[in-house]
Amino acid sequence: METSSRIPVPSTEVQKHNSSSDCWIVVHSKVYDVTDFLTEHPGGSAIILKYAGADATSAYDSVHAPGIIEDTLPPAKMIGPFDQVTSFEAQPRDSEPAQTLTISSPENDEKPPICKLISAYDFEALAAATFTPKAWAFYSSAATDLVTHTANRDFFRRLMFRPRVMRNVKDVSTRRSILGFNNEVPFFISPAAMARLAHPEGELALARGAAREGMAYCVSSNASFPLASIINAGVDDQTFFLQLYVNSDRKKSAILLQKAKELGIRAIFVTVDAHVPGKREADERIAAEAVASPVSGAVASNDKKGGGMGRLMAQYVDKTLSWDDIPWIRETSQLPIVLKGIQSAADAMKAVACGVDGIMLSNHGGRSLDTAQPSMLSLLELHQICPDIFGKVEIYVDGGVTRGADILKAIALGATAVGIGRPYLYSLAYGDEGVSHFTQILKDELETSMRLSGITDVDQAHPGLINTQDVDHLVCSTERHPYITWQPKAKI
Amino acid sequence: METSSRIPVPSTEVQKHNSSSDCWIVVHSKVYDVTDFLTEHPGGSAIILKYAGADATSAYDSVHAPGIIEDTLPPAKMIGPFDQVTSFEAQPRDSEPAQTLTISSPENDEKPPICKLISAYDFEALAAATFTPKAWAFYSSAATDLVTHTANRDFFRRLMFRPRVMRNVKDVSTRRSILGFNNEVPFFISPAAMARLAHPEGELALARGAAREGMAYCVSSNASFPLASIINAGVDDQTFFLQLYVNSDRKKSAILLQKAKELGIRAIFVTVDAHVPGKREADERIAAEAVASPVSGAVASNDKKGGGMGRLMAQYVDKTLSWDDIPWIRETSQLPIVLKGIQSAADAMKAVACGVDGIMLSNHGGRSLDTAQPSMLSLLELHQICPDIFGKVEIYVDGGVTRGADILKAIALGATAVGIGRPYLYSLAYGDEGVSHFTQILKDELETSMRLSGITDVDQAHPGLINTQDVDHLVCSTERHPYITWQPKAKI
Amino acid sequence: METSSRIPVPSTEVQKHNSSSDCWIVVHSKVYDVTDFLTEHPGGSAIILKYAGADATSAYDSVHAPGIIEDTLPPAKMIGPFDQVTSFEAQPRDSEPAQTLTISSPENDEKPPICKLISAYDFEALAAATFTPKAWAFYSSAATDLVTHTANRDFFRRLMFRPRVMRNVKDVSTRRSILGFNNEVPFFISPAAMARLAHPEGELALARGAAREGMAYCVSSNASFPLASIINAGVDDQTFFLQLYVNSDRKKSAILLQKAKELGIRAIFVTVDAHVPGKREADERIAAEAVASPVSGAVASNDKKGGGMGRLMAQYVDKTLSWDDIPWIRETSQLPIVLKGIQSAADAMKAVACGVDGIMLSNHGGRSLDTAQPSMLSLLELHQICPDIFGKVEIYVDGGVTRGADILKAIALGATAVGIGRPYLYSLAYGDEGVSHFTQILKDELETSMRLSGITDVDQAHPGLINTQDVDHLVCSTERHPYITWQPKAKI
Amino acid sequence: METSSRIPVPSTEVQKHNSSSDCWIVVHSKVYDVTDFLTEHPGGSAIILKYAGADATSAYDSVHAPGIIEDTLPPAKMIGPFDQVTSFEAQPRDSEPAQTLTISSPENDEKPPICKLISAYDFEALAAATFTPKAWAFYSSAATDLVTHTANRDFFRRLMFRPRVMRNVKDVSTRRSILGFNNEVPFFISPAAMARLAHPEGELALARGAAREGMAYCVSSNASFPLASIINAGVDDQTFFLQLYVNSDRKKSAILLQKAKELGIRAIFVTVDAHVPGKREADERIAAEAVASPVSGAVASNDKKGGGMGRLMAQYVDKTLSWDDIPWIRETSQLPIVLKGIQSAADAMKAVACGVDGIMLSNHGGRSLDTAQPSMLSLLELHQICPDIFGKVEIYVDGGVTRGADILKAIALGATAVGIGRPYLYSLAYGDEGVSHFTQILKDELETSMRLSGITDVDQAHPGLINTQDVDHLVCSTERHPYITWQPKAKI
Repeated sequence: METSSRIPVPSTEVQKHNSSSDCWIVVHSKVYDVTDFLTEHPGGSAIILKYAGADATSAYDSVHAPGIIEDTLPPAKMIGPFDQVTSFEAQPRDSEPAQTLTISSPENDEKPPICKLISAYDFEALAAATFTPKAWAFYSSAATDLVTHTANRDFFRRLMFRPRVMRNVKDVSTRRSILGFNNEVPFFISPAAMARLAHPEGELALARGAAREGMAYCVSSNASFPLASIINAGVDDQTFFLQLYVNSDRKKSAILLQKAKELGIRAIFVTVDAHVPGKREADERIAAEAVASPVSGAVASNDKKGGGMGRLMAQYVDKTLSWDDIPWIRETSQLPIVLKGIQSAADAMKAVACGVDGIMLSNHGGRSLDTAQPSMLSLLELHQICPDIFGKVEIYVDGGVTRGADILKAIALGATAVGIGRPYLYSLAYGDEGVSHFTQILKDELETSMRLSGITDVDQAHPGLINTQDVDHLVCSTERHPYITWQPKAKI
Repeated sequence: METSSRIPVPSTEVQKHNSSSDCWIVVHSKVYDVTDFLTEHPGGSAIILKYAGADATSAYDSVHAPGIIEDTLPPAKMIGPFDQVTSFEAQPRDSEPAQTLTISSPENDEKPPICKLISAYDFEALAAATFTPKAWAFYSSAATDLVTHTANRDFFRRLMFRPRVMRNVKDVSTRRSILGFNNEVPFFISPAAMARLAHPEGELALARGAAREGMAYCVSSNASFPLASIINAGVDDQTFFLQLYVNSDRKKSAILLQKAKELGIRAIFVTVDAHVPGKREADERIAAEAVASPVSGAVASNDKKGGGMGRLMAQYVDKTLSWDDIPWIRETSQLPIVLKGIQSAADAMKAVACGVDGIMLSNHGGRSLDTAQPSMLSLLELHQICPDIFGKVEIYVDGGVTRGADILKAIALGATAVGIGRPYLYSLAYGDEGVSHFTQILKDELETSMRLSGITDVDQAHPGLINTQDVDHLVCSTERHPYITWQPKAKI
Repeated sequence: METSSRIPVPSTEVQKHNSSSDCWIVVHSKVYDVTDFLTEHPGGSAIILKYAGADATSAYDSVHAPGIIEDTLPPAKMIGPFDQVTSFEAQPRDSEPAQTLTISSPENDEKPPICKLISAYDFEALAAATFTPKAWAFYSSAATDLVTHTANRDFFRRLMFRPRVMRNVKDVSTRRSILGFNNEVPFFISPAAMARLAHPEGELALARGAAREGMAYCVSSNASFPLASIINAGVDDQTFFLQLYVNSDRKKSAILLQKAKELGIRAIFVTVDAHVPGKREADERIAAEAVASPVSGAVASNDKKGGGMGRLMAQYVDKTLSWDDIPWIRETSQLPIVLKGIQSAADAMKAVACGVDGIMLSNHGGRSLDTAQPSMLSLLELHQICPDIFGKVEIYVDGGVTRGADILKAIALGATAVGIGRPYLYSLAYGDEGVSHFTQILKDELETSMRLSGITDVDQAHPGLINTQDVDHLVCSTERHPYITWQPKAKI
Repeated sequence: METSSRIPVPSTEVQKHNSSSDCWIVVHSKVYDVTDFLTEHPGGSAIILKYAGADATSAYDSVHAPGIIEDTLPPAKMIGPFDQVTSFEAQPRDSEPAQTLTISSPENDEKPPICKLISAYDFEALAAATFTPKAWAFYSSAATDLVTHTANRDFFRRLMFRPRVMRNVKDVSTRRSILGFNNEVPFFISPAAMARLAHPEGELALARGAAREGMAYCVSSNASFPLASIINAGVDDQTFFLQLYVNSDRKKSAILLQKAKELGIRAIFVTVDAHVPGKREADERIAAEAVASPVSGAVASNDKKGGGMGRLMAQYVDKTLSWDDIPWIRETSQLPIVLKGIQSAADAMKAVACGVDGIMLSNHGGRSLDTAQPSMLSLLELHQICPDIFGKVEIYVDGGVTRGADILKAIALGATAVGIGRPYLYSLAYGDEGVSHFTQILKDELETSMRLSGITDVDQAHPGLINTQDVDHLVCSTERHPYITWQPKAKI
């Protein structure tokens, strides 16, 4: 970031410094003078000279952790940012490698025109290419082996449409009420921490984009701006929710909840699936090399587990939070309560019994307990075990939503609305314009899916539109196994 | 195309211009003089000089969108087409990488001898290698994540034969009647738009090839030749069908339908699965850079969604078309009606109730609503939910057919005939000769599959020949889910 | 082959000819002088000069079909065979890439010591690397998309052992009687055509190896040696079977059957799954360039379908052969009859009704009708539909057997014995020593699998040792579909 | 190893020797002077000169077996170890390629700081990169096609959590009693042979690490240190078990068992799934080139099967061991008995009938009989066939455990404790510190999984936490197949 004030160095200039007596290299878009360092390099000078006057990032990355070059060289040796021609290529998707986004960007630091991004995958690819390695690791990482993270997405693809045809679908409406508040679309921005890592305006841009699109926004407890600033960035009567990590110091949470009420927050989304943070290894690894935590300002120092930002930021979360605390939250906040992170019919029923206003089926985007069942599978489990729950509370789902078709499937199977987290962080590459554009993409995909399914209002979406046969065998139909009768020593 | 009148530049000539004072490069089979441009290139001259006197296509493609070189350089800098030795390699198939087509073509612009192409995959590979990027993108693309497109093909492979042996299979007949008209084969050319992108004679060549092989041809509403020209290109008494997109301006459709009747069209295939076009991202992306639409003659200008030809061409389609319009189509056309794009038993039954003559189980080749169930799965659904429908209407299937064995499977499971779209466009690489040759390949594969299954007439194909066990669990057996009892607010 | 009489050219010699005025290259282990050709090369001289004095095979193969260099250059330009250091690497296996065979062979034309080959996969890798491209294509190819070929192998891997432990397994016996004749092992050599393509001694070596190992050998109708020579190559009282393709000219078959009886053939294996040959595209493609058929001595000339050796050799096969012909075969041969290629319970029952002595569940190694069900699936189908058949006839299985464990699974599920085809052709890389060594590998694997399963005699193998749950849903349990009631127009 | 006393040669020095008259190359981290050898190389000098002054390992490995360079060159030509900058990259995991470990190690022979290793996969990657090829092959290999080895791991990933939320999970306990002895964790070190191949202190380090972490350690019969030394390396009252291969010379086993009792061993784990060794091909292959067996001190000489260390070391194992021998083991050892390698409900019930104290569901880490069912599948089989067994004996599981979540799943499904073998050998890269660190990683992962599942004691883990639906169809529910009625000739 500090380099943005320096003048970019064109490649034609870098190329001139290509000898052992005058050697510049480019690493991660910065130009370094490594002439004096040549003889000190533990790996010898030859490997460096191979890239004299050129970009050595790839070779560097293959042996070095990020940041080591800055630790090693005196600051003055950083000549400036590299004036580069950037190439963005979309990551291959699960089921096919053909549809890549390839965009040439002729000017330094300039992103491709936003109209070239036409899907959530494009925003993801751009984020992977342009965010700092730490921001990318923090946002994109998920628990241990990414099984749940991957399964969340795959599960949507295994749900097949049985479209109905020959209906007048000229005019369609995607509007849906969430907790009594109007929403232009049946989805909202799920809470995700530290949006400023993606864009200087972070949560402010999310609030502005949400306002423009008439979409609810659930602000993270770990936002990088003060709550008041975020809400002020929006418009009057905009629908904000607040995600809550209960603090071990309950007084701090009480203050936050009261402020939320005052600021016009519409409901509290209590996170219940992260009493401790999941183990996100990509996040742990990158932090290992001197990455400053934007939360504390301090450099994250490695401990035995690594230095994951997600873990460091969760230290204040109260591990003792239990069902008994719900009345306290309600009384303190005087707001509707949604439990975010319900993953079983048993807990869904318990939540209803506790009188909450909504439940969010979520596995924290695969970031908490790896191999937890996909959130859409939990939705199907409700139909099997506690079908009466539909109608008693609002039910939201998040995790793995990348397409308008995914949203329609969730609605057709009984969800009130769908939360979308990571992709909105990625859309911040373009600030609030990105938030708007991405929302319009999703809405357009949703409308197309509705029309091609033969419906004109999301309220018409029904289970008969979805063939779930490929996943039906995965749905638990009772709380207990049909064939395992063994009981543990200490049941809870 | 305009370059075909110029003299090809041999590589020996190109190689001479390999310095910074005289620099030619080859990009996408065209030779450019970039000497003056070297100092202007935003990425510096070094990267260009690396390919001086040589082919730079691969490096170019990795950073630039197609067409940018032509926008940047003055036309005079295009020296001419490159006299190249072409290498065709078949794409790897889903289940194995071993059987590549490798054909050397010693002469410029000459395709491999047609006899070297022995499968639908070979034609596909040739098309991928030789069609313009836009034509390839337009033809090969499918909706969003290609899930349905891929599943269409895969589904056929999951249907296993249980061949019967020790029958006299010396003489076999592949003839089958479609809507009362004789056909030498139980398949026909499915409608596909803009065949001229593949070959200058486009639909004329399709008509001629179909005539020669005694095969029905369903002409697209978006054909690149006038309907009369196409029909005149064929022979007397040839079986043509006409695919219909109903125009928002119904009068235009009425004129077309009346003309169809006059021209001897045998039936109208009303497309019902594309009231709006699917989102085909490969098509959207390529259009982004100044590709002229052969439909309008105008340059497709990017809007926020991209510039997909499929989308631009669908703007006239009437989104209000409904079941109530069928009598109007019938009265106007005075022809048998087939509904193309039925995807559920419910709509199949409704179509029968409306008195149509045939239904085509189709998901538009995966181009409309992604993750819609494979068309063969819809066929199995009919057996489960409305088995009486067989015999009441003719039932066609398309999507994913690449082998004669696929055709036999569809017939054995109750289809009247099978439609084949994209592969016929690919066969146009050789004009009408390609259409004939490809038809003969399919027919030969079909005959071989019949003989090896122990039958001598397609009318003998029966379900007992097919082991469907691998996919039976995917078949919806009722209109409603067995375990989801929730109902949406507004049922339709 | 003709080059083997020339003196190998060492690489040190080749390297000297590395300029445009004196240019040698190596292609497919032959050294060529291409100096005069440099200016004639349609692709220019630069690409050739890049490999001057070196091996250009890889670059050559990427653009040229095999053989074209020999068609183009005068014979005198072939300097001689290349004295190479050969590297053999095993192909990656389906489920893991780690266990490669890497063998250095310091001397020209010398294979790795046979003891380095420790599995069927090693022999396959060696064959792929050392057989002529045509021999490899002819042997390894299978019908169209290789679905059945692949499924044959995969199916064995999906059958899981439930080993029994704590048994005395010091002494084990793998002996099994086949049609009343003793066999040291419960497997035999399945018929495979034209063994001479693999080794000059071809079928003679197979006979000698089989004799040494006490294993039955079923000779192919399309053997490359006369039947008498093959049998004479073996020992007295050795068990030979004869595979029979019935000739359209029945008299020729009658003569062959009578000779078989005289020569001591023990039974006739009538091939019933190949009235016409399957479409083996790898075979078709390679034949396209002047490959001499060892059967006819003539050069295979391309027709529209390609030039597959498998297809050319099958032209005499009688497509009219039917169940009614079985008495004629029996009377003419006066020998027990086995039908090879049964693929359904229906035909298995019919075969028993016809009084045959054995049936061989086979899909011709995936070479006939692609997507036919794996042969082991047909075995399970017999258990479902006609369980009484076990005990009435001997039942053999072939297709996809590569491990001793596969053999044990087939036996445990009711097979009398297992046929192994392609791998024995690959073992011919070492002549009859290869046949012996490979047999010992399989026998050792079988014995190990028996011991680790807790049995000491193949006759003890029982279904309880095998967990078939992963594939049970694939087994047809009736001749008709449970839910498809539609009937074709013309039932047979 | 002997090279560690020599001075490392820096790359700057190696680079100076880069001509045909003075040629050094690096192969497998050793620097060789190959100047004299250039003219003798069978493959010619050019290929060597290409790497003059550089690292030729990759090229060398592609054609040569390990060790051949040392056999060929006089010892004096080995200049010394290479002073390298090492790069460690984690192997791609089954379900995703993104989370690589990349660690730069600036000093020669220095491993990355142990805190950089944060998962079992990291230790595995480090072992793959730093162990000798033979040690890596011996440890990592598994039987034939690695199907069971892979399935062991995959099976855990197919078991999904249904986490319970909103419980007070501040304090958690992972303690569990094994055979009456306290254990800080519900897992222990499974027996694995020859730990000294991984670290000079081998089993001593395992004992020390286990002591520090309060974890049981089951010592291998094939340990590389005497049993007394291993036990003395630990602390008083530490829990040791002894794995037993019964010797064909029973007296030797009797001596060992009596010594075990005297040394304070707590129980005998009798291996019952390896009367003969499985066929581990990676192990067989590497031994093929002069690798000294650390067991006998002799060079393993190739036989026809290869030279696998696992096989050579198993020659003394008594193949006659049977259920009748259990009383003898009990009387001789006077210790509790656990049968390790039970793989079916039938044998589990038999073991209970024989009065053993525990059974270990194990397939020897996939090293014995390939395609044997995953050990967790055997655990589910017990629930189906003999649910009463839970409570009658302690039940352990091993094979494929890499995560704390895996451990929790096994416990929740009824296992008393989990054994972990290979990963502990990999942790020996850091001696006993590695053992400790790895144990803490697993324990931390386990605690996190417990908290995120809503439990605070392993005794609370219950089947309702696990969704097994994805694998339930694989579980045999009876000893016999539901539909196979055929019986073998000789039942046992």
